[in-house]
Amino acid sequence: MNKNAYSTIDLSARRNAQMGIKMNILVINCGSSSLKFQLINAADEKLIAKGLCERIGIEGSQLVYAPTGGEKITTVTPMKDHTQAIGLVLNALTDEKAGVVKSLQEISAVGHRIVHGGEKFAASTIITDEVIEAIQECNELAPLHNPANLVGIDACRELMPSTPMVAVFDTAFHQTMPEEAYMYAIPYEYYQKYKVRRYGFHGTSHSYVSHRAAKLLGKNYEDLKIIVCHLGNGASVSAVKNGKCVDTSMGLTPLEGLIMGTRSGDIDPAIIEFIAHKEGKNIDQIMDILNKESGVLGLSGGLSSDFRDLVAGYEKGDAASVRTMKAFAYRVAKYIGAYTAAMNGVDAICFTAGFGENSGFIRNLVCDYLGFLGIALDEQANKAQGEETVVSAAGSRTKVLAIPTNEELAIARETFALVK
Amino acid sequence: MNKNAYSTIDLSARRNAQMGIKMNILVINCGSSSLKFQLINAADEKLIAKGLCERIGIEGSQLVYAPTGGEKITTVTPMKDHTQAIGLVLNALTDEKAGVVKSLQEISAVGHRIVHGGEKFAASTIITDEVIEAIQECNELAPLHNPANLVGIDACRELMPSTPMVAVFDTAFHQTMPEEAYMYAIPYEYYQKYKVRRYGFHGTSHSYVSHRAAKLLGKNYEDLKIIVCHLGNGASVSAVKNGKCVDTSMGLTPLEGLIMGTRSGDIDPAIIEFIAHKEGKNIDQIMDILNKESGVLGLSGGLSSDFRDLVAGYEKGDAASVRTMKAFAYRVAKYIGAYTAAMNGVDAICFTAGFGENSGFIRNLVCDYLGFLGIALDEQANKAQGEETVVSAAGSRTKVLAIPTNEELAIARETFALVK
Repeated sequence: MNKNAYSTIDLSARRNAQMGIKMNILVINCGSSSLKFQLINAADEKLIAKGLCERIGIEGSQLVYAPTGGEKITTVTPMKDHTQAIGLVLNALTDEKAGVVKSLQEISAVGHRIVHGGEKFAASTIITDEVIEAIQECNELAPLHNPANLVGIDACRELMPSTPMVAVFDTAFHQTMPEEAYMYAIPYEYYQKYKVRRYGFHGTSHSYVSHRAAKLLGKNYEDLKIIVCHLGNGASVSAVKNGKCVDTSMGLTPLEGLIMGTRSGDIDPAIIEFIAHKEGKNIDQIMDILNKESGVLGLSGGLSSDFRDLVAGYEKGDAASVRTMKAFAYRVAKYIGAYTAAMNGVDAICFTAGFGENSGFIRNLVCDYLGFLGIALDEQANKAQGEETVVSAAGSRTKVLAIPTNEELAIARETFALVK
Repeated sequence: MNKNAYSTIDLSARRNAQMGIKMNILVINCGSSSLKFQLINAADEKLIAKGLCERIGIEGSQLVYAPTGGEKITTVTPMKDHTQAIGLVLNALTDEKAGVVKSLQEISAVGHRIVHGGEKFAASTIITDEVIEAIQECNELAPLHNPANLVGIDACRELMPSTPMVAVFDTAFHQTMPEEAYMYAIPYEYYQKYKVRRYGFHGTSHSYVSHRAAKLLGKNYEDLKIIVCHLGNGASVSAVKNGKCVDTSMGLTPLEGLIMGTRSGDIDPAIIEFIAHKEGKNIDQIMDILNKESGVLGLSGGLSSDFRDLVAGYEKGDAASVRTMKAFAYRVAKYIGAYTAAMNGVDAICFTAGFGENSGFIRNLVCDYLGFLGIALDEQANKAQGEETVVSAAGSRTKVLAIPTNEELAIARETFALVK
């Protein structure tokens, strides 16, 4: 399959393509020292170019630029800030030789991935001064991510002042959760004063994948109970009932829930105090350990944060890898069970993101727990890697699917829908 | 039902009673400033007397003593330490007027409830100097509880030097959990250095109730998949597969898992850092809030830590009570779903402890999520309060039971089994 010609093309997109409509959307995902981008023609949903700026504001910064069908170009060049980085991206896209558009006029809109929309944003929105202010107010809920996202918006507005921009929030899809799913059992004043509650992340992926599952199964999205397991270096599960997210495993921050590459996911909160006292560390140091030295990396005794290494170790019978992969799969299975209870049933379970969409091994390990849901995998189909595939056997009461996620395409679609 | 003549009498106990054997077991449960006791005849499993010392070492200490069939006597008297408290208990039990035994010789053994047995104790054991040392080594895992338990042992040994004593651990029943259930995804060295792992508590109750469930259903304990929901001011769930505990919701400490009277249960661990910074508090202060000001008390905005108040509020439509009870029940339902996945199925779900065994309301609220397990409650049977009752309807695929827990009787049985 040509990864650029998305099999996931919408009917509306097909119609647009037939009509020759062109709507190039630049998708921007800004980290604190990095910037990922894709230029997508929202009319036919084809990827035009993509790339990455690394080490922004740090020595040794570089731009990797890959036009579809062309050669990948790596340029090592100083980037003192995100404005300079976006300038280089726009230059690359409009470059006479390697560029893909003649001028910035051909970029119809920019879609920005924003990590935290708090309770303010339950949907994507066109960026205005008021929206920027509201995003700023969410900064303290995602102090590492939101400010970087805002820098990306500022830089784009400076360089493309007349191009419409859209904010697409990682949290928005989860805003439909009911109170019993998003409230923590801590003093209520912390919710009133600081909005401490479950938000959830990866929303764009959970929304995209659950919609794709309904299409693949030929069912109405609103009639289904779907569980999406987004298993990548960051990992989360969500429950989508009748077209609405009713629960998700990440919480106030992306630390809660599944075991991840380097994040612990769920622990007894008292462990923080216990280790702090034992090791003479403060809260911030412990949080750093829980975010960066835990997860499969920590549980495997430092072996690897890359699931592929641990699967290889598991297959060789390495004790640390076996321990780690079993615990990882067990946690996923428990969340599937919990969310089946949350929805009082489940029709389809989707595996997505780097590990979930590519690894028959992990889908198998997880589904071994789920015979009680009438699940049986099709051994051949479950070999699927990066292709939309029903991996459960024909008679499986609950369907299991492998669905590649595509957050950039989802952001382009949302942007297109708001600016067209 | 006469609460003293346990309906749960064992066949062996009945046989002993027929043979006129007498085996009085004193069961001691020592807290930091309190001491609960029961004297049980392990031969016929009848309660002989019970009582409570409160405010030990604090001004206003008192002994409440209640001989079965006799009048309850409250004595306000100074108790400078646990030895003095136990002395008063033994005096009361042997008192000429209100006493139930002629001399301490008639107390055959003492069973001590010990909170934390770490990885050292997977079963009850006769107390020796070595055992005391091993319990001391677990102190740092339960710094509030184990030292108090040890004080109780010391005091009893001083006053009854020739009476055999048994330690019954809250953690022992859970020691059969597999690695994937008890390991946290944090750096492995914390397990190696400090034994940071899931231990679980309420083990005596989970063991007792799951055994009772098998008897009530007339099935072999080893053939069943049972989930026990111990819902009291402290609350936990366990999964018992083929006679062995395979998972439980409390962890390194009793803070993890369900929403409790004042404990938060599961939260995003990052909330600790977030609130600490917002409120200018240190880890210990936050842990105190999570243990003492959270749970249903916190979520209800300080309304009550007593479930009965919140059920009353729910029934009147009070928003805080509704929010709190829905979140509590939802968490229980999610754990049931998770443990059904852990065991790949479930045969019976048991509700026990103050709230679980007495409240048809909560059993109903939880089971509303569980139609997918083929569960239907029998409205009439579900009115059961404090009686062993199958509360599911005749055709219910998964059985639901209300089973009063009796930790003291379980401790007496364990003690009897080791010293007879």
